[in-house]
Amino acid sequence: MTHSTSRRAVLCGSAATAVLAAAGSIPAAGTAHAEGRGERRAKGGPEIGILLYDGYSLLDPTGPAEVLSRLPGANVTMIAERRGPVRTDTGDAAVVADRSIAEVDRLDVLLVPGAGNRGTVAAMKNQALLRWIRRIHRNSRWTTSVCTGSLVLAAAGLLDGRKATTYWASADYLESEFDVTYVAERSVRSGKIITAAGVSAGVDMALYLASLIAGDTTAKAIQLAIEYDPRPPFDSGSAADADPRLKELALRLLAESDDSHG
Amino acid sequence: MTHSTSRRAVLCGSAATAVLAAAGSIPAAGTAHAEGRGERRAKGGPEIGILLYDGYSLLDPTGPAEVLSRLPGANVTMIAERRGPVRTDTGDAAVVADRSIAEVDRLDVLLVPGAGNRGTVAAMKNQALLRWIRRIHRNSRWTTSVCTGSLVLAAAGLLDGRKATTYWASADYLESEFDVTYVAERSVRSGKIITAAGVSAGVDMALYLASLIAGDTTAKAIQLAIEYDPRPPFDSGSAADADPRLKELALRLLAESDDSHG
Repeated sequence: MTHSTSRRAVLCGSAATAVLAAAGSIPAAGTAHAEGRGERRAKGGPEIGILLYDGYSLLDPTGPAEVLSRLPGANVTMIAERRGPVRTDTGDAAVVADRSIAEVDRLDVLLVPGAGNRGTVAAMKNQALLRWIRRIHRNSRWTTSVCTGSLVLAAAGLLDGRKATTYWASADYLESEFDVTYVAERSVRSGKIITAAGVSAGVDMALYLASLIAGDTTAKAIQLAIEYDPRPPFDSGSAADADPRLKELALRLLAESDDSHG
Repeated sequence: MTHSTSRRAVLCGSAATAVLAAAGSIPAAGTAHAEGRGERRAKGGPEIGILLYDGYSLLDPTGPAEVLSRLPGANVTMIAERRGPVRTDTGDAAVVADRSIAEVDRLDVLLVPGAGNRGTVAAMKNQALLRWIRRIHRNSRWTTSVCTGSLVLAAAGLLDGRKATTYWASADYLESEFDVTYVAERSVRSGKIITAAGVSAGVDMALYLASLIAGDTTAKAIQLAIEYDPRPPFDSGSAADADPRLKELALRLLAESDDSHG
């Protein structure tokens, strides 16, 4: 089987021709911080760091990374307490942390993903992680979370007196343990802190953040670039409308798929 | 700062209590194939393999993995030509392949993600990958793709005479190079082959696939588990309605964020 494949052919037609003609012409947005990038060159756009820790939920960091990596000149870096693979809650996948927290002093954007119970509780008690989050937050332009990542931000003391969102099943816990007002929105901005609701909400939050960093036109183009015209097969994604039995099943599936189970 | 965190507390209230009481009681769905899992125990549910190759787009494999890993008893395995980290199109992230294609003989579900031009073209020419895809497809229950992954399935000869979808910018190419009829839907089923549209469409496709494997109630619960009640900030994700200039900008952002650029 032979096909006349070429870079130009796969993204076909006049649009691709325009791309190739225009490549290199996008002005860089934001400010550059080369710290902690080591051998990778600064690209002139925002330095975005995503904190991985044992037991995170895979889509929490990767959905926003897909969006934010398309920002002009952006560097997205996966960061963890130590360099190397960091496994998800289910144990099914590992994303590589390319930098340790000791190597990263400053970020334009910090994103803290959520995790299953095990991972969230461990991160909330990890004083080295919490200290690093507080330090990065001091000079960040945006400090953000997805899902139970807001519990980690709260444990670091960043959400005191603020409005925030979190995973639907953790909302009562967030309000009872911290001085935080839960808001049931896909994402909630409070000053330079943006928290997103559960797992998939990170994609919506990241597009909103993209619009704040680079403007609406760029954010709209990124939404088109990832063909984000969602058509979920069911209307079951909101806990506000969910039957209690469906909530129980959802939490049971999460508990059973967790690597620490059984 | 001390908090009375516990496994029970983070997912709070009666739902979590029910989870803990019920844990272990979900019947396994699907058939088990332990081949290629090595040290990991079979969990009684479907064996799902996601093929990584250099230059894939991060959300293509990770969105569906988040969904499918919640199926009762499912094993999701990241697979590549060789074990080890496999980098995305932007170079910003790497997911670890835990198995090589030589180690995996049979899967219930195969998922082939899409990639940037560089990665897609290379995969379409990689005869070892294409042979493996054809071999796995012979005994799979479902063979699936996201984004330009359908071009890889087509290059493997699996889409001849079929309807399929792909990334919006690759639709003309798919139809001109292969005996395939492009359908502009989030996912298209043809026999046991399901193709999804670009990047984010993998999440919609995976929920549909979850319903085929484990029924609507389980799929609805997974949708709630990932809080997938999408609220994109813009209405710009469909190429059918997009301004040509926005399409050009989208493709330019993709080209510029590609690791092989500049």
